Amino acid sequence: MRVELFFTPHHIDELYLREKTVVVIDVLRASTTIARALSNGAKEIIPVTTVESAMKIVGNLSGDVTLLGGERNGKMIEGFHLGNSPLEYTEDRVKGKSIVFSSTNGSQALAKARHAKELVVCGFVNMSAVAEFLLATGSDVTILCSGRAGNFSIEDTVCAGMLITKLSEASGKVIECGDAGSAAMTLYKNAAKSIVKMLARSQHGQYLKEIGFVDDLRVCAEVDSVPVLPQLVGNVVKLKTAEKVSVVS
Amino acid sequence: MRVELFFTPHHIDELYLREKTVVVIDVLRASTTIARALSNGAKEIIPVTTVESAMKIVGNLSGDVTLLGGERNGKMIEGFHLGNSPLEYTEDRVKGKSIVFSSTNGSQALAKARHAKELVVCGFVNMSAVAEFLLATGSDVTILCSGRAGNFSIEDTVCAGMLITKLSEASGKVIECGDAGSAAMTLYKNAAKSIVKMLARSQHGQYLKEIGFVDDLRVCAEVDSVPVLPQLVGNVVKLKTAEKVSVVS
Repeated sequence: MRVELFFTPHHIDELYLREKTVVVIDVLRASTTIARALSNGAKEIIPVTTVESAMKIVGNLSGDVTLLGGERNGKMIEGFHLGNSPLEYTEDRVKGKSIVFSSTNGSQALAKARHAKELVVCGFVNMSAVAEFLLATGSDVTILCSGRAGNFSIEDTVCAGMLITKLSEASGKVIECGDAGSAAMTLYKNAAKSIVKMLARSQHGQYLKEIGFVDDLRVCAEVDSVPVLPQLVGNVVKLKTAEKVSVVS
Repeated sequence: MRVELFFTPHHIDELYLREKTVVVIDVLRASTTIARALSNGAKEIIPVTTVESAMKIVGNLSGDVTLLGGERNGKMIEGFHLGNSPLEYTEDRVKGKSIVFSSTNGSQALAKARHAKELVVCGFVNMSAVAEFLLATGSDVTILCSGRAGNFSIEDTVCAGMLITKLSEASGKVIECGDAGSAAMTLYKNAAKSIVKMLARSQHGQYLKEIGFVDDLRVCAEVDSVPVLPQLVGNVVKLKTAEKVSVVS
């Protein structure tokens, strides 16, 4: 298995990701929020890149079954039902709902990878579920960190480094992963003792504390606390279910 | 002093760098080659982004005083006098010459930063000279790693991490440097024991070994072996000299 890692999605051509097995990481907070929403019974997440697209899609759908979620600069968008705090996506708010979701970085990465053969969403909260899935497929993997406005973010990179480390340990092999992957593994090793401290020191973590979301850091740091596998199917993110076998009678 | 670090120049708008103090890093090999060429008496380096520009400029200049240097994919360009191996830029070949220089990554980074207030070129070979200059100016610093074809390169990042570490140690202060700068310092700490081993393991280092430039790695790894300060003045890179004082009589 070979792993390639990109710290941001900005300079990647979306056709480059066609037919690849792609992992999208946005630790603070889209990965975590999507995992929690689906774990709490949301039917699906419909990622869109612009607020206008979100409004347009939700305009065609009944309000009872569809919610608007997401953020710009960390804050809830006017007219939306939910922001991007994983703590908002409780069972009583999201169960059975389709959520049209637009965030500053995560939604952009998901859009970039929409032609992938397989696309799964990874955070610390569902690390082992993603690792197990990748080991089972055995394919080469492209990890796409969302970063922050086109720039490197430490939390996504450490998460990627943890994922590559887990793949390496579980397979008993050194994973060929280039300069970026090796650097991510070093950065994970350096941060492994306290993921929540690393989040608190990160630029994005500091910003989230400033705007009142300090509790989100703890939630986003809890490894394997939401053991689900969100996967893009068509244009929506759903929980990965067992493969269906078509029987022709 | 604040330091910001970019792992590649590709997504940066050149106007963003206007009026900033910029350090361009391309360890393998443009930084090292430029430092050695100037140290060995080259009059100036004229960085250009395309082979066509190089040919055009040299066409207007006398062949006795001007050389064409650079590479594409690590190899000398047809019709050029010199490649991008620092070992080629000996005193007998470059003394007194202007060198029109085009490399795959380093020249692109230099071009991106051409509107900077101050622009200096940094590798391991002239680390302390660059650090001393930056400490003397006291300005905020933007470090621009050249990377490799738009992607992260470990050797440029470790070099940036060493520079930030030196600035921090010399000033006795924690340098505010964001996620990228902190990550670079961690990666430097991890690689500090053997810079040449880090270069040998890097993707670019492995490629250079494959195409016959293994000796360049040792040269590029030698900290402070070429203690000069290459600086962009107008459109050419020259050795930084003491400030001239204008006296109006």
